[in-house]
Amino acid sequence: MKSWRFHGTNQPLTSEEVAAPHAGPGEVVVDIKAAGLCHSDVSAMDDPGWMPMFPRIPMTLGHENAGVISEVGEGMEHWKVGDRVGLSPMMPDGDAIGYGAWDGGFGPKVRATDANLVRLPDEVSFELGAMATDAGLTSYHAMVTLGGAKQGMRVGVIGLGGLGYIGARAAVLKGAEVYAAEVNPATRELADEVGLAGVAESITEFADKELELIVDYAGFGTTTAEAIETLGEFGTLVQVGMGRLESTISTGAIILKQLRVLGSKSGTKQDLEELYDLMRSGDLNPPLNRITPDRIPEGLERLRKGGVVGRLIAMYED
Amino acid sequence: MKSWRFHGTNQPLTSEEVAAPHAGPGEVVVDIKAAGLCHSDVSAMDDPGWMPMFPRIPMTLGHENAGVISEVGEGMEHWKVGDRVGLSPMMPDGDAIGYGAWDGGFGPKVRATDANLVRLPDEVSFELGAMATDAGLTSYHAMVTLGGAKQGMRVGVIGLGGLGYIGARAAVLKGAEVYAAEVNPATRELADEVGLAGVAESITEFADKELELIVDYAGFGTTTAEAIETLGEFGTLVQVGMGRLESTISTGAIILKQLRVLGSKSGTKQDLEELYDLMRSGDLNPPLNRITPDRIPEGLERLRKGGVVGRLIAMYED
Repeated sequence: MKSWRFHGTNQPLTSEEVAAPHAGPGEVVVDIKAAGLCHSDVSAMDDPGWMPMFPRIPMTLGHENAGVISEVGEGMEHWKVGDRVGLSPMMPDGDAIGYGAWDGGFGPKVRATDANLVRLPDEVSFELGAMATDAGLTSYHAMVTLGGAKQGMRVGVIGLGGLGYIGARAAVLKGAEVYAAEVNPATRELADEVGLAGVAESITEFADKELELIVDYAGFGTTTAEAIETLGEFGTLVQVGMGRLESTISTGAIILKQLRVLGSKSGTKQDLEELYDLMRSGDLNPPLNRITPDRIPEGLERLRKGGVVGRLIAMYED
Repeated sequence: MKSWRFHGTNQPLTSEEVAAPHAGPGEVVVDIKAAGLCHSDVSAMDDPGWMPMFPRIPMTLGHENAGVISEVGEGMEHWKVGDRVGLSPMMPDGDAIGYGAWDGGFGPKVRATDANLVRLPDEVSFELGAMATDAGLTSYHAMVTLGGAKQGMRVGVIGLGGLGYIGARAAVLKGAEVYAAEVNPATRELADEVGLAGVAESITEFADKELELIVDYAGFGTTTAEAIETLGEFGTLVQVGMGRLESTISTGAIILKQLRVLGSKSGTKQDLEELYDLMRSGDLNPPLNRITPDRIPEGLERLRKGGVVGRLIAMYED
């Protein structure tokens, strides 16, 4: 099968013929129907700091996947060929689909285990299902599980891209008063659709709101610093975005305002199950851009340049 | 009475005659017996970033105080002249003794309220009692209340000065395995006395220990960054020291190791009561250097230069 292969920092993905995977014991093979493109893929390709996560190259990126089970391995008889599934990417050992040992959805077939498999309701499309596996569960985990977004809370969201839209929308649906920072003017126009109380270019515009929680889905270094400056006393910053891996922050503000800064990575299968339930209702319906799999490198280049509104999803043909 | 007065950033303290305070309603006057000198005083004098905490200058610094009640205001009849007390510095409105509206112990008499007053047991000296009010309760709050130091936990401590010694010793007394980083070779010699499992110049020397908690009592920017690099997965950094107000940190490490960074400022009256109990036993007995009040500026200069082992305490004559 043809897959887009990753060879290391600053090297383009190359389309190569690789052997189709088979389901070992405790595994299934999923025929990918939809694979999301993520800023993390771009960072992994551009920043040598990411290479420790890739002990095996070449390999196939793509950690946001939904599809249909096409092969069932020994001990996996509770699944059957034809089941619609989304793949929560994290493995119990800290590895993940689309990272170290597990080829991802920038190729047409992927191995997965019970740690990953979540049933995709019939009402939820493959593209929404794929988006939810990373952008979705990462957003939800940061905003709700770690951040504790709830009724009446004053919440800031930095970045209304793939992750931020869902996080902001989930907070709104929980009854929070949500303010968002977004550098892209076109993306700021999503404010009404999301149900925001306010939107601006920088979160510092909301310094008078005494925000209790800010989730930084962008992570451009300056955004972390701005969130720390903006939070009210005893506030919480949940750091998710890894646009850059370093930030110069005010430790003085952290101490004097007695802030909490929490790192949030990915999420759990439970988060994904909750999200699929929300999506079934139609209330959580972020913008998507469908592309064909041959356009994956071009899509990543669009992410690199910035300004993409909504998640890019590569759709595989039946 | 003669007090050391603070006039603003980069200005020396000057000895000036000021009116002795009287106890208003809800207040007492405490004759200071012991007043601790703190790195925070030096930072406040050197760094313009601290000036928002000093809306009223000139004023008298000194936030680590113990003494004897000499005057009791209206509604404060549950205290009597002659009571031995330590002063927890924080006011309910966020102000503190030795900061905004409340002159501190670099002068011989100080006003205080029920928010501050803790009975000092007869077994505990004024100098230990003074040290406990800030170095002590700040240490304890960070290490135990926020950090959750407990039996069997692998704990790192950065800085074995006034605060760090107490934090490290409290963690040891709780049964934790404690590793410390300290740049001053003379201070590193306290390791056995504290009961440390290891001591080094930098906390990064203990990167193989998968530390669960690091408390940074130094706060020199680089120490925050090193703590984040050193912590094990799901670890907690409690940031206390404000040697510098800024740090360039790895947000990547925070996210990928799912760390928590907690700002800790001061502590509570309850922390101070617990500490006075521990001190009554004689098990928590950090090194002290007694000086006369006329040497306070000289003592602060020693702190500025670094290398002081043990808390500097100005002792007032009877």
